[in-house]
Amino acid sequence: MKMATIDKISPLAPSGLPDFPEIDGVQLATAATGMKYHGRDDLLCVAFPGGATVAGVLTRSRTSSAPVALCRRNLATGQKARALLVNAGNANAFTGRAGDDAMTSTVRALATEVGCPVETVYISSTGVIGEVPDDRKINDHMTDIVRSLSPENWTAAARAILTTDTFAKGATRTVMINDVTVRINGIAKGSGMIAPDMATMLAYVFTDADLSQDILQAIVAESVDKSFNAITVDSDMSTSDTLLAFATGAAGVGGDINDIDDPALSDFRAAFQDILLDLAHQVVRDGEGATKFITITVTGAENDPAARTIAFSVANSPLVKTAIAGEDANWGRIVMAVGKAGEAADRDALEIFIGNQKVAEGGMAVAGYDEAACSRHLKGQEIDISIDVGIGDGMTTVWTCDLTHGYIDINADYRS
Amino acid sequence: MKMATIDKISPLAPSGLPDFPEIDGVQLATAATGMKYHGRDDLLCVAFPGGATVAGVLTRSRTSSAPVALCRRNLATGQKARALLVNAGNANAFTGRAGDDAMTSTVRALATEVGCPVETVYISSTGVIGEVPDDRKINDHMTDIVRSLSPENWTAAARAILTTDTFAKGATRTVMINDVTVRINGIAKGSGMIAPDMATMLAYVFTDADLSQDILQAIVAESVDKSFNAITVDSDMSTSDTLLAFATGAAGVGGDINDIDDPALSDFRAAFQDILLDLAHQVVRDGEGATKFITITVTGAENDPAARTIAFSVANSPLVKTAIAGEDANWGRIVMAVGKAGEAADRDALEIFIGNQKVAEGGMAVAGYDEAACSRHLKGQEIDISIDVGIGDGMTTVWTCDLTHGYIDINADYRS
Repeated sequence: MKMATIDKISPLAPSGLPDFPEIDGVQLATAATGMKYHGRDDLLCVAFPGGATVAGVLTRSRTSSAPVALCRRNLATGQKARALLVNAGNANAFTGRAGDDAMTSTVRALATEVGCPVETVYISSTGVIGEVPDDRKINDHMTDIVRSLSPENWTAAARAILTTDTFAKGATRTVMINDVTVRINGIAKGSGMIAPDMATMLAYVFTDADLSQDILQAIVAESVDKSFNAITVDSDMSTSDTLLAFATGAAGVGGDINDIDDPALSDFRAAFQDILLDLAHQVVRDGEGATKFITITVTGAENDPAARTIAFSVANSPLVKTAIAGEDANWGRIVMAVGKAGEAADRDALEIFIGNQKVAEGGMAVAGYDEAACSRHLKGQEIDISIDVGIGDGMTTVWTCDLTHGYIDINADYRS
Repeated sequence: MKMATIDKISPLAPSGLPDFPEIDGVQLATAATGMKYHGRDDLLCVAFPGGATVAGVLTRSRTSSAPVALCRRNLATGQKARALLVNAGNANAFTGRAGDDAMTSTVRALATEVGCPVETVYISSTGVIGEVPDDRKINDHMTDIVRSLSPENWTAAARAILTTDTFAKGATRTVMINDVTVRINGIAKGSGMIAPDMATMLAYVFTDADLSQDILQAIVAESVDKSFNAITVDSDMSTSDTLLAFATGAAGVGGDINDIDDPALSDFRAAFQDILLDLAHQVVRDGEGATKFITITVTGAENDPAARTIAFSVANSPLVKTAIAGEDANWGRIVMAVGKAGEAADRDALEIFIGNQKVAEGGMAVAGYDEAACSRHLKGQEIDISIDVGIGDGMTTVWTCDLTHGYIDINADYRS
């Protein structure tokens, strides 16, 4: 299978990676295996010499990859993590026993090099599905990559994990816990729920706060719900989606917190949520063929889950996404998508806004709404769609991108 | 909103409409209102002078149109139908009170002209959402259209109900009930679950068999489940989807049947099912931008509903649909779509076939499968994907089309 050609950076890309601070207890290194890509690093190793508590969220796919199964097993042990290895180019998904064996061989090589138990090693693989990876191509680099670990390699790390992404994705925040400064860095990759031929959205967050696995897991869970679980590019779910958070504790603060609602943790939680949202938005901004970043806000639904179902019904509707690509204020398609969601809705109570223009209410179009203002809004890159269902208090916000010829170009990979 | 331009007939279109027989007790006429289209008929009137039992299935959309609500109310009365009116160009959906009033005015005009109670009149409207139709443009034709009713106008009828369709859709079957010949004619329109700016899939089936409303409804329900409810173009559900079946009883046979499992009815049920499947396939073959007709068969699922969820997860996956458009044997995307369906699945039990080639089993690619044969199959217009989940007895078949630049062209309607 050929790789999609990346002609240019997404028009929705941010100006660049942030200036990552070092995080005490985190060391990084990258290498080029040549497994799939040439002329770039495609292997990331992260080590936690003092260990790090680890929490995570993994794909719910019933055909998830070997590395996802490994992460799930290791998280369940409750042990501190000592190393993370990410390779880009081969997802090691649907590769059967041979894929499991290749992964096990890599885990052993890394554990030996780092000097840690195998169950403290985390692995992610992203790339082609269904091809057994050649573990030697990774293992041959193990000694060198572990030797070159350094606290400074954040930018290289963000770049090494990319596949069809058109830009590297990162975010950083610094906050206080009980008057002590703690840092949080995050990196991510993904340009679709699953990219062409390539599996995956991957995200890693690192902090020097001292947090128990339970607290860290609770923070991850609440933050994912309103970030990575609130975005969609094409409604497809990867076999490898992985989000892992590591807390080294080197800042020496937070260890006494055993309740997520402890006020000492509130700034940290907000910053953590902010990083995940920032990374999730960057993934949408790199959506395949995307030319518009779309925010869909639903209010007045029967309850929050109903709001979410309606919001995703709109966000995943090919007819809504193509209308926005065409800068067409086609609110009829939004009505259709609300209707097909199957949640309680009432034609006459529904209100639809495009930008700040109310375009529909009372069961019909708003007479004389400002079509020119609506059109100006749709010509921009940041599109806001608001839907008030008008029957309850449920609300949510989700993010997506438009559906364009670029998506077809990338995914209908015409082979000669 | 401008209408999509129809440049050419779908490459997947059948050779033409069938040679419809007359059906005793059914009279048809068409007219050109000029409401939206010019140079073609856009209004269909069907009358049942002796009445017809009527059954139907209507969209489950929570934002369904005024005509859908009317059909639902009239079906519930249990009265025989006397007339059906279909207009193409305006869906009368999300048009509020004004839309309801316009429809009521048309119903009255038709009932007066035919000389029947208003609750025996059925209405369907298809076209733009959110614009109140001008009922005078329809009502002005009422006297003439009722005067020109004839048992022969089937081809004109099939054409008058089209919107963005690229070809007219019809099917006919003749079968015996207790040694008496009965006829079934069907016509349909639709080129997406919902077409661009235009709502709707509509289908009408007419027979001279003598069937009670309960029997007819039971036959419709069983047939829809394996036909119109087993197809998808773009996963979007129309606000106006309507299927109505009318039985005039003029053949004088069937009136004594009060059990759908009566053996006398078995040929009729098979033929009825066959007509709906034929019409449903024609709708998929006219899918927006379609170049491939895709049959997805799932076997070995936990149960039939699970098979259906998995089949639709594959059929609605933009990544699967673009891969097939690209003639790419990308079975990894099929694995992904099975995985995201959320139904029970086991990586190592899954088998995937493209055409007659088994491409994946035992948790990985089949070593040395015939890629050339697979490629030849994908270059054709009729694509077969079979998935054996390998864990139970559940099975189903669904149909869809590929996702191409043509879909984006039609739906991303760049307005000046």
